[in-house]
Amino acid sequence: MRLRILGLDPGLARMGWGIIEMTGTRLSHIAHGVLTTDAKSGLGPRLLVLHDLLSDVIQRLEPHSIAIEQAFVHKDPSAALKLGQARAVALLAAARAGLEIAEYTPNHVKKCVVGVGHAGKEQVQAMIRHLLPMACVESADAADALALAIAHAHLSATRARIEAALA
Amino acid sequence: MRLRILGLDPGLARMGWGIIEMTGTRLSHIAHGVLTTDAKSGLGPRLLVLHDLLSDVIQRLEPHSIAIEQAFVHKDPSAALKLGQARAVALLAAARAGLEIAEYTPNHVKKCVVGVGHAGKEQVQAMIRHLLPMACVESADAADALALAIAHAHLSATRARIEAALA
Repeated sequence: MRLRILGLDPGLARMGWGIIEMTGTRLSHIAHGVLTTDAKSGLGPRLLVLHDLLSDVIQRLEPHSIAIEQAFVHKDPSAALKLGQARAVALLAAARAGLEIAEYTPNHVKKCVVGVGHAGKEQVQAMIRHLLPMACVESADAADALALAIAHAHLSATRARIEAALA
Repeated sequence: MRLRILGLDPGLARMGWGIIEMTGTRLSHIAHGVLTTDAKSGLGPRLLVLHDLLSDVIQRLEPHSIAIEQAFVHKDPSAALKLGQARAVALLAAARAGLEIAEYTPNHVKKCVVGVGHAGKEQVQAMIRHLLPMACVESADAADALALAIAHAHLSATRARIEAALA
């Protein structure tokens, strides 16, 4: 099984993304980055920039699935609104490209990648460096995105093993 | 001055839209409708449907401006998130088409159209029937959208008069 996964940490000002490939049970790093928008622009143009940059990434690197942070219900409604808007254009780009969409909570991802649900950002980054030694990730947003992709890879591999055992 | 305005009442399940044209100070109704999505579909496909249907409306009817309900900070963060997602794809479609984007609070719109900020939905619908007798609007969502367009038309006319007076 060869599966290419795009992990995405959505945000209006900074959207982290990372693509990994799983061949059997082996993970390899493909690419990662951060899409940023200018806070001085209007909301419409900022969403358009995010959508189009992300569509370029999807078109160029051809992932099969997207793993995105679940829309957790934020305590702050204004932050929830901003996050929802950034998430929406990402989901739109993914749906247009026909990608499978998987959602994970931050705690599920940390548990899967670091081993504990309340791991700090530094622990996630250290584990990404360990799991994807060629990746060279400096940004916390891109590390979170790669962690989402890894969590999805693990779940997909587990599912494949269960299906094989039941077949 | 001839200005064609698209008013938009965003929502994930139902998005009301209405287009009016202002020629000098005369308003005329062009078209209106409600875009709906199926709650049984995933969020990505629903956002894609809303975006593409709205883009069709914009392409076919060629408004110059869009007047959209301001993202008020909802008491309920989960509702804020849903609304934000629907709003985002509408703003994306508007930004891609190069439309001017104007945002109004529901109270501003009611004050402008009915005369009082806390008017009920029936009062808005009655005033829409009075202002746009040819419109024949049954849906409250489309009536709200037309009310947004009318509020924007009033403001644009006022601005034009001020500019003319200062010129």
